[in-house]
Amino acid sequence: MAIHLQKNAYGKNAINLSKVIRHPDHHEIRHLSVDIALEGDFEAAHTAGDNSSILPTDTMKNTVYAFARQHLTASIEAFGLILAGHFLEHNPPVCDVRITLTEYCWKRLLVEGIPHPYAFINGGSEKHIAIVSKSRQNLLLSAGIDDLLILKTTDSGFEGYIRDQYTTLKETADRILSTSCNIRWDYDRAPEDPDATYNAIRQDLLRSFAWHKSLSVQHTLYAMGESVLRAFPEVTTITLQMPNKHHILFNLQPFGLDNNNEVFIATDEPYGLISGTVSRS
Amino acid sequence: MAIHLQKNAYGKNAINLSKVIRHPDHHEIRHLSVDIALEGDFEAAHTAGDNSSILPTDTMKNTVYAFARQHLTASIEAFGLILAGHFLEHNPPVCDVRITLTEYCWKRLLVEGIPHPYAFINGGSEKHIAIVSKSRQNLLLSAGIDDLLILKTTDSGFEGYIRDQYTTLKETADRILSTSCNIRWDYDRAPEDPDATYNAIRQDLLRSFAWHKSLSVQHTLYAMGESVLRAFPEVTTITLQMPNKHHILFNLQPFGLDNNNEVFIATDEPYGLISGTVSRS
Amino acid sequence: MAIHLQKNAYGKNAINLSKVIRHPDHHEIRHLSVDIALEGDFEAAHTAGDNSSILPTDTMKNTVYAFARQHLTASIEAFGLILAGHFLEHNPPVCDVRITLTEYCWKRLLVEGIPHPYAFINGGSEKHIAIVSKSRQNLLLSAGIDDLLILKTTDSGFEGYIRDQYTTLKETADRILSTSCNIRWDYDRAPEDPDATYNAIRQDLLRSFAWHKSLSVQHTLYAMGESVLRAFPEVTTITLQMPNKHHILFNLQPFGLDNNNEVFIATDEPYGLISGTVSRS
Amino acid sequence: MAIHLQKNAYGKNAINLSKVIRHPDHHEIRHLSVDIALEGDFEAAHTAGDNSSILPTDTMKNTVYAFARQHLTASIEAFGLILAGHFLEHNPPVCDVRITLTEYCWKRLLVEGIPHPYAFINGGSEKHIAIVSKSRQNLLLSAGIDDLLILKTTDSGFEGYIRDQYTTLKETADRILSTSCNIRWDYDRAPEDPDATYNAIRQDLLRSFAWHKSLSVQHTLYAMGESVLRAFPEVTTITLQMPNKHHILFNLQPFGLDNNNEVFIATDEPYGLISGTVSRS
Repeated sequence: MAIHLQKNAYGKNAINLSKVIRHPDHHEIRHLSVDIALEGDFEAAHTAGDNSSILPTDTMKNTVYAFARQHLTASIEAFGLILAGHFLEHNPPVCDVRITLTEYCWKRLLVEGIPHPYAFINGGSEKHIAIVSKSRQNLLLSAGIDDLLILKTTDSGFEGYIRDQYTTLKETADRILSTSCNIRWDYDRAPEDPDATYNAIRQDLLRSFAWHKSLSVQHTLYAMGESVLRAFPEVTTITLQMPNKHHILFNLQPFGLDNNNEVFIATDEPYGLISGTVSRS
Repeated sequence: MAIHLQKNAYGKNAINLSKVIRHPDHHEIRHLSVDIALEGDFEAAHTAGDNSSILPTDTMKNTVYAFARQHLTASIEAFGLILAGHFLEHNPPVCDVRITLTEYCWKRLLVEGIPHPYAFINGGSEKHIAIVSKSRQNLLLSAGIDDLLILKTTDSGFEGYIRDQYTTLKETADRILSTSCNIRWDYDRAPEDPDATYNAIRQDLLRSFAWHKSLSVQHTLYAMGESVLRAFPEVTTITLQMPNKHHILFNLQPFGLDNNNEVFIATDEPYGLISGTVSRS
Repeated sequence: MAIHLQKNAYGKNAINLSKVIRHPDHHEIRHLSVDIALEGDFEAAHTAGDNSSILPTDTMKNTVYAFARQHLTASIEAFGLILAGHFLEHNPPVCDVRITLTEYCWKRLLVEGIPHPYAFINGGSEKHIAIVSKSRQNLLLSAGIDDLLILKTTDSGFEGYIRDQYTTLKETADRILSTSCNIRWDYDRAPEDPDATYNAIRQDLLRSFAWHKSLSVQHTLYAMGESVLRAFPEVTTITLQMPNKHHILFNLQPFGLDNNNEVFIATDEPYGLISGTVSRS
Repeated sequence: MAIHLQKNAYGKNAINLSKVIRHPDHHEIRHLSVDIALEGDFEAAHTAGDNSSILPTDTMKNTVYAFARQHLTASIEAFGLILAGHFLEHNPPVCDVRITLTEYCWKRLLVEGIPHPYAFINGGSEKHIAIVSKSRQNLLLSAGIDDLLILKTTDSGFEGYIRDQYTTLKETADRILSTSCNIRWDYDRAPEDPDATYNAIRQDLLRSFAWHKSLSVQHTLYAMGESVLRAFPEVTTITLQMPNKHHILFNLQPFGLDNNNEVFIATDEPYGLISGTVSRS
C-alpha cells in the first residue's frame, strides 16, 4: 500500500495587532489576534521539499498588518472576509482559506461617570470570534464568543439521573451553575452589521442563561441554542461548549456548622464538559 | 560555623471558595482565594521533625471555609482580620500571620438593561487584594489591585533619554501606553468601610492614569501614587508595578504604506517593568 | 423549519490520578489525567431536562479511581480499553465512548548514577496520549505524544518560496528548526505491548527529525510520518501538528557586529502552524 | 508631610535569546531569558518626566543580544557578571544592577543510544537561575533552580501535629511527597566553574531529597539546605520554596474496595507552601 499525504494545512497563528482609530471626539482601540490556515495542493512541498507553491507564514503576517492599515475599519467579520479573499485570489494552489479572528474587548474608562476620550480598561476574558472559511466554491461565515464566564446562584438543579454502584453524588434542586462558554454559530449569509448581530446574539444567550430553570447543563445549553435559532433566522446552527466549573458544597458538619448552600469549594479540575450543536432540520 | 534555620514560613495557598449571600430581592456571589502564611518558632519541626507546634495546612483550609460560613459577611479586609486574629490567638508558637485574600469580580448580568437578581458575569482579570500582616505587637492592613489592564492611545510619549551605541529606539511624543498593574497600599488603620475606600482609591488611580500627560511610565506611576496619597490620608505608602505591554509600530514602508501611529504589533515579551513606591516622609 | 439537537457529548475531564505500584525492589509511580466523553440518545435531557439517561460526570470520576485500583496495571491504552468497555456496556443510551488518557512522565532519580528505588523527577513537558473510541460496532485505538519540544541547529533551510509584494523574509539554507509537536496515530488493532510500540514509534520520530535534511517544516513533517508508516504496519494513519517556534536572527549590524547564525530572538508568537496527516491508500 | 519617591526600579524582562555554538563535532544550543533591573537616582524621571538619566529598556535588550554574541561563551553566571558590570559602569545614575538569568535545558537527542550532533530535546520544566546583584560597593552572586518537580512514594510521613476543632486530616506514616521546588543560594565569591558547582549542588539536593526520612516538608527542606551548606563552603545561605503538590488518598470504601496507599487524587490547589532559609551563623 502506498503511503501518501492526506489532509494538511499551514499558516501563521497569533498575529497580534492593535489599531488606533481617531474619531473627532474620542479614540477607538482595536486589539485582535489573527490565525490563518491555508489548504490546497501542497503535495510537492511535503514529499520533495519543493517550496514553489508555498507562501511563507511570515508573508501572511505582513499582509495582515498591511491590510489592517487599510481595511480594518469595521467588524472583524468584514476584515476576515477581505483577508480570505486576498489569500485565495493570489495563491492558485490554495483551495481553502480559514481566517480566525479573536478580538479582545477594551472599554472606555469611566472617569466620574463619563467615558474618557482615549483611556481604556480591558473588558475581561470574554473574546469575540469570527471565522471565515472560504474555498473556490463556498463561503462560510461563523462568529462566536470564547471564555464567556457566567454563573447563576439558583434556578439550577440536577436530579433524577442514573444511579449505579459508583454513585456518590447527592441530588440537588438548588446549586450554583458556573461555566466558561465557548460558542460558535454559522450565518447563512454575512449580516449587514456583524457587530450589531453579534451583540444581539450575545444578549440573547445571556438572557436565556439567566432566566432558564435549569435541570442540567445540557438543558440550559439546548435552551440557549434554541433561543438564538428562534430569534435569528440568519443563524443556521450553533454549537456551545459549556465546562461545568463546579462549586462543591463544603461539609461543615465536622465543625458543628450547617451549610445551607452557602459556602462552596470553587474548583477548576476535574470538570464536567458538556457540548452540543443545535440546528435547523 | 554553625548551620541554622533563618526566616521561614508555611501555610496553605489557593484556598478557593465561593459564598452565596441571599438578600431579599437578589443574591450576592463572593468568590475568593485565600493564602495563609505563619511564621514563628518552628525550629524543631525543621531540624528534628517534631510536628508538635505545627498546625496542618489542611486545618487552615478547613478553618477558612468554616469562618467563611459565619464571618464572610462584608469586605475581604474584615474577613482577613478575623482569620489573622484566630490563627495568632490559638497558636502560641506563631509570631506572625499573613493572610492574603484575592477577590474575583462578578457583576450582575444586565438583562434588558436591568441587573438580574441571581445571574452574574465575570468582571475580568482585575482582582481586589487584601493583606493582613499581624504579629503579637503589630497589625498592618494593606489592600491593592492585581492585573488591572489599562491602556491609553495618546497623551503618552518617551523622549530625551540616554543614547548610547546600543540605542535603536526612536523618540516619540505620541505612543500607546498599556500596562497590567499590580498595586498595593498600606493603611495606617483599617478603614471603616474598606470596600468604599478601595473603590474610591481605584477610581482615583484610573482618573490619574487617564488624564496624566505621560512623559514615561515612571512619570505616570509617580503621578498615580502621589494622587492617592494626597487624596487618602489613611494611606501611608503605595507601590505600583507597571509592566509596559509594548505596542510597537509596524513598519509598513516596504509595502508602500504609511503608518501614522495606526497599526501596532501587540507584544507580551520582552516587556519593560517599572516599579516604584511613593510614600510620606 | 424545526429546531433540533445535533451532535452532542458530555463527560468528565481532567480526572487527575496517581497510583503507586510497589515492586519488590522499587516503586513505580503512574500519574495520569483522564477525559471521558459519551455520545448517544440524550435528546430528552436537552429538550426536557429528563436526566433518566444521564450518568453523572461525578460518577464517571468515581469509576475511574475505582478502576485504577484494580485495572491500572499496565499501559494507559489497556486501561482505556477497559474503561470504554465498562461505560458502553452499562449505559444503554450510550452509542459512543471516547476515553482520552494523558500520562505524565516521571523518571527514577539517579543518585550517584544509580536509579533510586522510590524517588522520581518529572520528565518534562512531553506526555504520552492514548485515545479509545468505542461504539457498539467499532473500536479505534489511537496513541500519540503531546508537547514534544525538539530543536535542531542545522540541516534546516527554507528557500524557493513564493515572493509577493508583502514578502520581507530572507531565504536561508541554514536555520534553527524548533517545534513543540502534538502527534496522533491510529492502530489497526491494539498492539500486544502498547508501551513498547509507543516507545519504538517515539524513537522513530526522533530519529527522522534528527537526521532529516529539512527543506521546510512540511518536508520534515511528512518524512516523520512516512517513516512511522513504513516501520510500523500496525499504524494506519498519523497526524502531526508542528508549530514553528521561530528563532529569529537578531540584527547586530547597528552595533558593528556580524551575526553568522549565532544569536537569535526566541519567540512564542506569532508562530507558523503546520499540520498534516500521512496515511496508506 | 511631604510625598516622595522611595524604592524604585526599572528594566527589561523576558529578553528571550538563543545562541548556537558550533564545536568541531557537535553543536551546543543555549536558550535563556534575561531580566534586568536598575536602581538609582531616578527621582526627576518620576516627578518631572525628565528622562535624561533613563537608559531605555529597549537599549538594555539590544545590549543583551549584542553581548550574547561576544560574551555568552560559558556559564550564565559569567554572562550576568559582564552585563551587570557594563550597565553599572556606563550609567552614572545607577547605584544597583540586578541581572536575573534563566536558562532552559536542552539535551542532545539520543539516536540509537548516541548523542546526536545537532538535534536536541527539551529537558523539562526545570530551569537554571543565576542572579547578579551589583552595586558600586558590593557584588552578590546567587544561583538556583526553578520548577524542579520531584516526588517520592515513601519515606515520607506527617504525624504528631496540633489537633484542634477544625482538624480532619488523618495522620500518616507513609504518603507521597511531591513538590515543585524553587531554590536560591548565595555564593561568598564566584565559583571558578559555576556550571560544575551548580550541577554538584543540584545533585546534592536530589540525593538529600531521595534519601531523607521525611517527617514533614519542613524537615526535608531543612535537610536539603543543611546538606548543601555542609558540602559547599562557598555557599553562605540557601532558600527553598517547596509547595506541597498534594496526592490525596481516594476513598474507595463506598465501592467495596480497599486503598492501601495505592490510588490518589493528584491536585494542584489548594497547596501547602513551605519556605525556609538555611544559613551559617
